[in-house]
Amino acid sequence: MRNIKLEAMKLHEEMKGKMYMGEKIPMDFDNLPLLYTPGVAEPCLEIAKTAERAYDLTWKWNSVAVISDGSRILGLGDIGPVAAMPLLEGKAMIFSHFGKVDAVPLAVSSGSVDEIVNVIKSVSHGFGGINLEDISIPRCYDVLDRLIEELDIPVWHDDQQGTATIIVSALLNSLEVTGKKLSNANIILLGSGAANTAVYRLLRHVGLDPKQFKVFNSRGILGTHRPDIMDVKVIRTICEETNPSGKDISIEEAFKNADAVIALSRSGYGGIKPEWIKTMSKDPIVFACANPIPEIDPVVAKEAGAAIVATGRSDYPNQANNALVFPGMFRGALDVRAKGISWGMAFEVAKEIALMAKEKGLSPDRVVPRIDEPNLHFRVAKACALTAIKEGMARLNISRDELERTIEKHINRS
Amino acid sequence: MRNIKLEAMKLHEEMKGKMYMGEKIPMDFDNLPLLYTPGVAEPCLEIAKTAERAYDLTWKWNSVAVISDGSRILGLGDIGPVAAMPLLEGKAMIFSHFGKVDAVPLAVSSGSVDEIVNVIKSVSHGFGGINLEDISIPRCYDVLDRLIEELDIPVWHDDQQGTATIIVSALLNSLEVTGKKLSNANIILLGSGAANTAVYRLLRHVGLDPKQFKVFNSRGILGTHRPDIMDVKVIRTICEETNPSGKDISIEEAFKNADAVIALSRSGYGGIKPEWIKTMSKDPIVFACANPIPEIDPVVAKEAGAAIVATGRSDYPNQANNALVFPGMFRGALDVRAKGISWGMAFEVAKEIALMAKEKGLSPDRVVPRIDEPNLHFRVAKACALTAIKEGMARLNISRDELERTIEKHINRS
Repeated sequence: MRNIKLEAMKLHEEMKGKMYMGEKIPMDFDNLPLLYTPGVAEPCLEIAKTAERAYDLTWKWNSVAVISDGSRILGLGDIGPVAAMPLLEGKAMIFSHFGKVDAVPLAVSSGSVDEIVNVIKSVSHGFGGINLEDISIPRCYDVLDRLIEELDIPVWHDDQQGTATIIVSALLNSLEVTGKKLSNANIILLGSGAANTAVYRLLRHVGLDPKQFKVFNSRGILGTHRPDIMDVKVIRTICEETNPSGKDISIEEAFKNADAVIALSRSGYGGIKPEWIKTMSKDPIVFACANPIPEIDPVVAKEAGAAIVATGRSDYPNQANNALVFPGMFRGALDVRAKGISWGMAFEVAKEIALMAKEKGLSPDRVVPRIDEPNLHFRVAKACALTAIKEGMARLNISRDELERTIEKHINRS
Repeated sequence: MRNIKLEAMKLHEEMKGKMYMGEKIPMDFDNLPLLYTPGVAEPCLEIAKTAERAYDLTWKWNSVAVISDGSRILGLGDIGPVAAMPLLEGKAMIFSHFGKVDAVPLAVSSGSVDEIVNVIKSVSHGFGGINLEDISIPRCYDVLDRLIEELDIPVWHDDQQGTATIIVSALLNSLEVTGKKLSNANIILLGSGAANTAVYRLLRHVGLDPKQFKVFNSRGILGTHRPDIMDVKVIRTICEETNPSGKDISIEEAFKNADAVIALSRSGYGGIKPEWIKTMSKDPIVFACANPIPEIDPVVAKEAGAAIVATGRSDYPNQANNALVFPGMFRGALDVRAKGISWGMAFEVAKEIALMAKEKGLSPDRVVPRIDEPNLHFRVAKACALTAIKEGMARLNISRDELERTIEKHINRS
């Protein structure tokens, strides 16, 4: 068995950073006055006149800032901004490798919602998009919502929309495999953090009824009877919509006849008990996605009757991995110069990823594709970009053919 | 003759950005769990324990943020942050090409000194240095001084320290060629903006007497009699030190018997008149560095008796070009993990650059080296790093031999 910790430290010591700034052409005395002063004044003036020209004349068309304040890194807690750098660089590498997106790791000071929003807005000008990473709750909710509102480029918090997109994708195929329907599935959300609140928002966006959900945090079911909940909009909404009368239902009770449980809670076995699974409806769907230790051992869940088990881990079947989503999502958003990434765009991408897995044959052990499947990121990009155009979120309104050529050219370049 | 404007626009349209984010190694399924989750948690935790380990485990050892708010770009005025991007990318390219420094272009919103300082501090964590660019006066003075005070990485405003370093370097050789001495030269500073105030600070740092200076802005000589000056520390200091009795000396009067005039003022002929040069001391030194049009045509200055003329332009002899300084300066500062770049480090670099030109033979038309001279940036880096160690500004205290090997390895890598 590999010693991942040891190997990871060794590789990081050797590499001294995962990314570098590359020059697109060699500089010489002939091009120096064009690339720098005095010639560079021309594109500067052109952009001063028409800001959108920055997409033609700078790297804005292809660049994303990958930003964290280090306040909730990988379940390690608040380790501070500079300690977030290895993760941010790793994320930048995945952006680059799979999406050919120029992703810049930016560690920012922690602070209030206002402070974080101001800093990110201030540094956003040169980028075509913003990817937020591992910012602690409850600040991450308002940080994301305000940035989406106040910026005219895509803002994505991978722990919210990213996780929601891949979870919903896996859910669509799981329902298909088990012969269940999204429109009347009874769903338990275990954990009401960044990920599951976004799963709720995404599923509500596509028409699910609040009655289909029972949402739990570590202290019980959410509802209007809970004075102890975080005072943020999305949590209040979930309380009011899913449990308006404030019934204090136990978790055992909630599992009875549920079709699916989506657990995105604290790491460690015990969050889901096998006896609860036994009381679920026929062919229950169990997503135990806590990292690194899922809420229940997948083998135990299967023995208890789970028809499908998904986790966040690469060493079990059905890894619900955000990295299937974000490289292509930003590739597509950038290629139409999107103003944002809507829930609609996220859902179409979830469907496209589900379709890819389906095309090669669904099974209980294969409801999501692998990250290296040919065309995955291309198809994610295309689904994202086409929906952006349809929804009026795209600055570039190009034909389907032209879009395909553009994405293909960008994603396959060396 | 080349049409630089047209060529520059064409090249920028073709390139769509000058830099890209490169991956140091190819990603695969074997290294993915080391570069990203779960393995990446190890270097994150290691840095959380000991922040300086970020220099070993991330790109911090080699990265510089190149930051502007677009408020004073190339004498184009306040064109806003996004329009600064072509310039910032060009600067990043020079950093990369000559210094092998990973320089990231960051356009930030304009604002008060407090606002800019807060944003830059907030995004500084992942970088080994900060290069400020084209921030308008008077804010740039306090922004620089506060960041130097409050951050523990080098902060450099190229329009202040950078210009001062190359100007002083050219001055040293000009004095040598004309048989004058720095310690008793009479110097006129024409223009009291970011560049000349830094020239003043640097020369004062190495012991020049305030009495050696007469400093002018567009409305006359600075002094305690001037109620109209900018209320910033460096300008007040210049008034009090160089003209404490507030004598209103005319520019014609000031030129009489002056040894050198350093003009860093508004673009356009007329700032220096030939008849003034005729009244200067024997073999006068004339630096007419306004861009793109110098304060006097170099040919006219020579005809009026100037022994040496330097400008900011590449099409005349003696180009005082900051790009001779900053790639090597940051290479050296990074290679000893410097906490800052002091005036002492700047002066040693100025001397080293002067020495390089001298080694190949000084002449009135050659007081500074060319940017592509072999070893220039290596020697700048070495002078900077050695002085940093000497002054206690270096985190890494390595031997001269080891330092040379390190810089050579870094600056020559492909």
